[in-house]
Parts: sequence; C-alpha cells; structure tokens
Amino acid sequence: MSKEFSSKLLENSVNQFAKLPGIGKKTALRLVLDLYNRSEEEVNNFVNAISELKANAHRCKVCNNISDDEVCNICSDSKRNHSIICVVENIKDIIAIERTMQYNGVYHVLGGLISPLEGISVENLSFDKLEDRVKEGKIKELILALNTTVEGDTTSFYLYRRMSRYDIEISTIARGVGFGDEIEYTDEMTLGKAIENRVKMEVN
Amino acid sequence: MSKEFSSKLLENSVNQFAKLPGIGKKTALRLVLDLYNRSEEEVNNFVNAISELKANAHRCKVCNNISDDEVCNICSDSKRNHSIICVVENIKDIIAIERTMQYNGVYHVLGGLISPLEGISVENLSFDKLEDRVKEGKIKELILALNTTVEGDTTSFYLYRRMSRYDIEISTIARGVGFGDEIEYTDEMTLGKAIENRVKMEVN
Repeated sequence: MSKEFSSKLLENSVNQFAKLPGIGKKTALRLVLDLYNRSEEEVNNFVNAISELKANAHRCKVCNNISDDEVCNICSDSKRNHSIICVVENIKDIIAIERTMQYNGVYHVLGGLISPLEGISVENLSFDKLEDRVKEGKIKELILALNTTVEGDTTSFYLYRRMSRYDIEISTIARGVGFGDEIEYTDEMTLGKAIENRVKMEVN
Repeated sequence: MSKEFSSKLLENSVNQFAKLPGIGKKTALRLVLDLYNRSEEEVNNFVNAISELKANAHRCKVCNNISDDEVCNICSDSKRNHSIICVVENIKDIIAIERTMQYNGVYHVLGGLISPLEGISVENLSFDKLEDRVKEGKIKELILALNTTVEGDTTSFYLYRRMSRYDIEISTIARGVGFGDEIEYTDEMTLGKAIENRVKMEVN
C-alpha cells in the first residue's frame, strides 16, 4: 500500500478507476469517495449496472452494435432502410450519428481502423462480415463514416478497393468547414476539400 | 430507453457513471465502453474493488478517516505525534497533506464545513468527537487546515471559539502566494495576507 492511502480497499478502488481512459489518480479518488459516501443501494445499482452490461449485452450478430438481444434494435427495425449501410469505427460513432436524426439506414461497426503502428490489420476488423452482407445483394450503398486520420483514410481506401467489385455505390461523409468554425483558422486540407466539394446554393 | 442507445444495459451503465461528479454523458459512455471491451476478469476486478470498499471499509473510530480496520493506520502509528491534531474537512485533504510528507501528527475529519446554505450545521459535523479527544488532556495543538471560503472561515472561527477554553494552541495553515503563482494575478485578499504574515528571510 502506498503511504498516502490509509486504506487498502480505498487504494484498490482508486487504482481501478485510474485505469479508465482520461481518469487520473486525483479524479479517481474524487469519484471513489463520492461512491463510498452513497447509500449501499446506490452503490449496488452502480456495480450491478456494469456487471449486467458485461454479462448480458451482446454484439449484434448483423452489425456488431452493442445490443440486449441477438440482433440490435436498429437492424431489427423494419422502418429503417436496410439497403444503405453506414460503416463506422465504433459504437460511439453510431450514437453520434443517431443523435443527428438525419440517417435512416443501418450500420456496420468495424471495431477499429487499419493501423500498422498499433498492430491492427485487416484480419482484426469486421470486413468479412461486411462483405457477406453486401454479397447478399440487397445493399445499394455503403457510406464510409470514418475519421479523417491516416488510419481512417487507409481503411476507407481499403474498403473502396475491396467493395467496388460489387454493384453498389460507395460514398464517404462530406469533409468541410464545421458549423461555428472560422475560415481563418481552418487548416488548409479541410479548406481545400471544402472548396473542391462546394455545393450549389439554392435559395427558395 | 432514449432513442440514441441501442441497448438498455448500456444506457443503464452510462446513466450510473453520469451520476459521478464531473462526469457528463459523453465521458460516461467512453468509460463504460472501455470497461465493456475488457476481459470478464478485469470487469470483475473493477466491480469487486468498489463492492468491497463499500462493504468492508470503516470510518476510523478516532479520527473518521477511511480505514480497513477499526482504527486507521495513522491513528495507530506509534511513531506519529499524537499531541497534534490537524483538523480537515474530508479524507481528500488528509491524502493531500500526507503527500507533502511535512506533517507527522494525527488528523480529525469533520465530514464537511458549516454551511447554512447547504443545510450543514454544527450537529452534522464531528465537533463533539473532536472535543472529546481534546478533553482527554493529551492534545497540545490543533491545526485548522480548512478551505479559505466563507464556510471554511466560519468553521475555523466556530472551532476557535469552542476549543479555546482548553489549554491548547490553535493555529491555521498559512495563507499566501502559492509557488508558481504570479504576484500580478494574485487576488488582493491573498496578497494582503501574504504581506501581513511575511516571514523573515534567513540566508545560510
């Protein structure tokens, strides 16, 4: 036990929290003491939520989204357009896109991006499963919604090469100047793409 | 279930994390997905650390510090000076002071500060227990290490009035300009106190 902690149990909990991304030791201590000072019931609710998530949540067998059932509620929703698949890196991207309420197709979660530096290669990602979905012949379009990083671009390029043999449209989400961003401070890559892909104005 | 989550189990865990201080929904999601993607053993370690802390850690019966035993390892350490008590608001303050390695006395955790606005009055805090320790007659000094806020000053003043009837010294930690702080940007209260309590320089 390090000298600063008077309790091994406290130190264990702090160390567990400090393993979470972006949580340092000081924040971990604050979170743990907040939990410790709650009622037994509240602590149980916290602990049970995580245990049950780990024990009972699945990866959707169609798209790899986290789901309480074998197939997630997006893939099993008959009101959605099952001929368009939006390909994303992870579940956080699905949640971000769902929040926009602009998309009514389905998804495919790759589980990462091709990254030789991090040792993530084609075999580690869910490309085969995606190709199986395309092969069924009901898919008309793939929208690649991957990060604009070297890894994202590499993965998009790989997917384009691999999937363009099928009779489908392949698109990527638009790159451009974000709402609220100032032209002056926008990097030249983004600004260049925004000019290249300019959109005709239509005033009604 | 809100529309953005495809899993009730995921949503529950995110909501539990988002109850922690300073953790918003986005951060909560990131933390939960990080946990979900770990091995079952690692998730169990996380969950068990918190369950065991809540079930088995006590408040030290002398000073209210969190402890694995009835009396904490600071109060039961015979090498420490048991005639000086440093009075703090909470356990985080003990850890901060222990880190300095400048203090060898013992502690007393009040459990909060007097705050009429938050409904915390004298009865809610551990003053009686502190007075009992002082009454035993072995205490020579109380160091009040409370925040420099209205609540901290109120509590220090109350403690001073209540404890000055005993034959002990009562001190507060020094207020002044912090290391690395710039005079130019130091508020006038702090700067005023720093001048008033100036310390004679000694060059060896």
